[in-house]
Amino acid sequence: MRTRPLKVALLGCGVVGSEVARIMTTHADDLAARIGAPVELAGVAVRRPSKVREGIDPALVTTDATALVRRGDIDVVIEVIGGIEPARALITTAFENGASVVSANKALLAEDGASLHAAAEKYGRDLYYEAAVAGAIPLVRPLRESLAGDKVNRVLGIVNGTTNFILDRMDTSGAGYSEALDEATALGYAEADPTADVEGFDAAAKAAILAGIAFHTRVKIGDVHREGITEVTAADIASARRMGCTVKLLAICERAADGASVTARVHPAMIPLSHPLASVREAYNAVFIEADAAGQLMFYGPGAGGSPTASAVLGDLVAVCRNKLGEATGPGESAYTRLPVSPMGEVVTRYHISLDVADKPGVLAQVATVFAEQGVSIDTVRQQGKDGEASLVVVTHRAPDAALSGTVEALRKLDTVRGVASIMRVEGE
Amino acid sequence: MRTRPLKVALLGCGVVGSEVARIMTTHADDLAARIGAPVELAGVAVRRPSKVREGIDPALVTTDATALVRRGDIDVVIEVIGGIEPARALITTAFENGASVVSANKALLAEDGASLHAAAEKYGRDLYYEAAVAGAIPLVRPLRESLAGDKVNRVLGIVNGTTNFILDRMDTSGAGYSEALDEATALGYAEADPTADVEGFDAAAKAAILAGIAFHTRVKIGDVHREGITEVTAADIASARRMGCTVKLLAICERAADGASVTARVHPAMIPLSHPLASVREAYNAVFIEADAAGQLMFYGPGAGGSPTASAVLGDLVAVCRNKLGEATGPGESAYTRLPVSPMGEVVTRYHISLDVADKPGVLAQVATVFAEQGVSIDTVRQQGKDGEASLVVVTHRAPDAALSGTVEALRKLDTVRGVASIMRVEGE
Repeated sequence: MRTRPLKVALLGCGVVGSEVARIMTTHADDLAARIGAPVELAGVAVRRPSKVREGIDPALVTTDATALVRRGDIDVVIEVIGGIEPARALITTAFENGASVVSANKALLAEDGASLHAAAEKYGRDLYYEAAVAGAIPLVRPLRESLAGDKVNRVLGIVNGTTNFILDRMDTSGAGYSEALDEATALGYAEADPTADVEGFDAAAKAAILAGIAFHTRVKIGDVHREGITEVTAADIASARRMGCTVKLLAICERAADGASVTARVHPAMIPLSHPLASVREAYNAVFIEADAAGQLMFYGPGAGGSPTASAVLGDLVAVCRNKLGEATGPGESAYTRLPVSPMGEVVTRYHISLDVADKPGVLAQVATVFAEQGVSIDTVRQQGKDGEASLVVVTHRAPDAALSGTVEALRKLDTVRGVASIMRVEGE
Repeated sequence: MRTRPLKVALLGCGVVGSEVARIMTTHADDLAARIGAPVELAGVAVRRPSKVREGIDPALVTTDATALVRRGDIDVVIEVIGGIEPARALITTAFENGASVVSANKALLAEDGASLHAAAEKYGRDLYYEAAVAGAIPLVRPLRESLAGDKVNRVLGIVNGTTNFILDRMDTSGAGYSEALDEATALGYAEADPTADVEGFDAAAKAAILAGIAFHTRVKIGDVHREGITEVTAADIASARRMGCTVKLLAICERAADGASVTARVHPAMIPLSHPLASVREAYNAVFIEADAAGQLMFYGPGAGGSPTASAVLGDLVAVCRNKLGEATGPGESAYTRLPVSPMGEVVTRYHISLDVADKPGVLAQVATVFAEQGVSIDTVRQQGKDGEASLVVVTHRAPDAALSGTVEALRKLDTVRGVASIMRVEGE
């Protein structure tokens, strides 16, 4: 084993960074044995240097992240700052100055992964980011390496723990969205500003990364159709229950049937209680991958948190250090298929639509005519009368999303339709 | 991209090999793009050359596997023959003659992985074997790479599809073992000679491989305690049901609480219906991995079959070919912890014991005394009388397996115990 240590710079020392530093110290011998050389924490860039950080030598702490990555003696930079800048500039500077990079930065990779990969390739460095998607659950490496000889057709998963916690609470307790969000905040599952989670931005970033790797093409966060969970109501959850379903925020990446394009989307959807994703509770994550030869695979685990994310970062650190020692690099970007990303309107899906309608003859005929005019075929209709009013629950067959949303617009214009109580896509059947 | 192809020799052209050859042809462009060079099937060693093999050029077929691996121009040998010899000699010869090896041979790796790894290292070649454990489910790579920065404490899984199919049928239909085995055979889930599956040899080989990688030590199939499912009765399954459990054949690899040893075992066990492994149906596989930082991860998918196994082989082929082009090798054996494997008697577990006893006063006291004498603490007892006979169902607290089996022996000697109707370990709680 080499005795001269590999030098690691840590950018960011929050929940994840401090756990990375802790494990690097407590498991130093194991890491050295697995890498073939010791690793040494050579510097830690932080915003607030005065904060006491247990187990970290204060002499290593700096506020000048740029100077740290420019030192020239750093072998690997671990970036757990998050956000676009200064993370992007620091990573690029790290590549220029001889370091490979391990990052947990989903937002940056989903926004500009292509230019980061290009910079890594230009300078012959590694860029690894298992921690950017679903915490400790191995997904990037299985997609990029284990399934490298297969053809992935679909990735379907729960990739945001906060929203899964909220929807799970709404499902089990009958609570409304605000009440469940309050509970998630009180328990530390939601941040003070929960926008990134509840509006689906976090899940959309992960969907972009997964779609890019799965289909060997480039998908940016802007290509991902995104709907959050803020408009999911207790009534939606109750409707789902009546159908033998539950509501989950899903990230869905698909190859089109003709293979000529891909789609990526994040939105709440009803899935049958019998589907394995329906039993993913609290803040857990789970992802299904469907491939030609492998069939259907599922990966499940904690999708966030300091320790699980640190586990993923350190797994990448070991790989990148081994590559350094072997003067090699791991797999880089694979975007050779150059498949275009189709808009949401072209995605083929199913709708569950719950309408409040006038309780008089001919309403169902009127409603059915609207569906027919839009070319949408109806799977089931359930009609229920109550005091002159009635509710009509329609589940469609599969149709392009544009036709389905067009149908809803047309239904809203009918005099006999008093209101659209709930619209939700149905997946996992 | 390099235009000169990498040459691949395929040893074995059965269910898996023919699928590997097929995908290498149909997905040649994708494989080339992902590897960075085309791959060419340069030879196929078979036992019966006269058999027509669709899509394989007869000129490539040979019965002389040794000559094929000795050719000297082969970059990668794919070994899907199975068994110890000639597979071992062929793999070693391949290494000597410049080739890296992708193998699906669980029996050989569990018997003699150490010497194969040593040979690979000596000659600077790769030895990859994702397909040896649980078909297409990525397990070797996640354990060896994704969790390389973490400490794995436990691997618990269903790793044999045939036995899971049989137990699932017994559970859902109330069928006995023989009847369920017949159904499995008729449907192609069990081989004509099902010994390797139903006696747990196949699962034990996988347990040895998983334990070795998970704990960075050497575990051979002979170190794995092994009990098959041939003695599982409809009564056992019914007992499990009454406890809110089901019966699964589990492979369990654990690090001892003091960290100084490991254990590996395969046996049927009752697990609660609420445990995710309880809902793994038919011939599917699923494996839980518990690690310090990552927490609990689960991997699920098809554990066998030509296509899923071929998917795993081809993922390894891509990795090994990339390494070849980069003049690097992937991670080799990691056995630095040298942890000893403890015998089954030292494993801490729980027993479910169902006794037929005389229906008279004092029996429970007698039975309880036996447990106390062996130092085994009782969790629950259920007593049920029927026509002068009674049944006593005892579930113990956790205790060393030796104490539990000693207790059963002592109970058998009691006059008031007419018979031991069912003994089974309880896991997953």
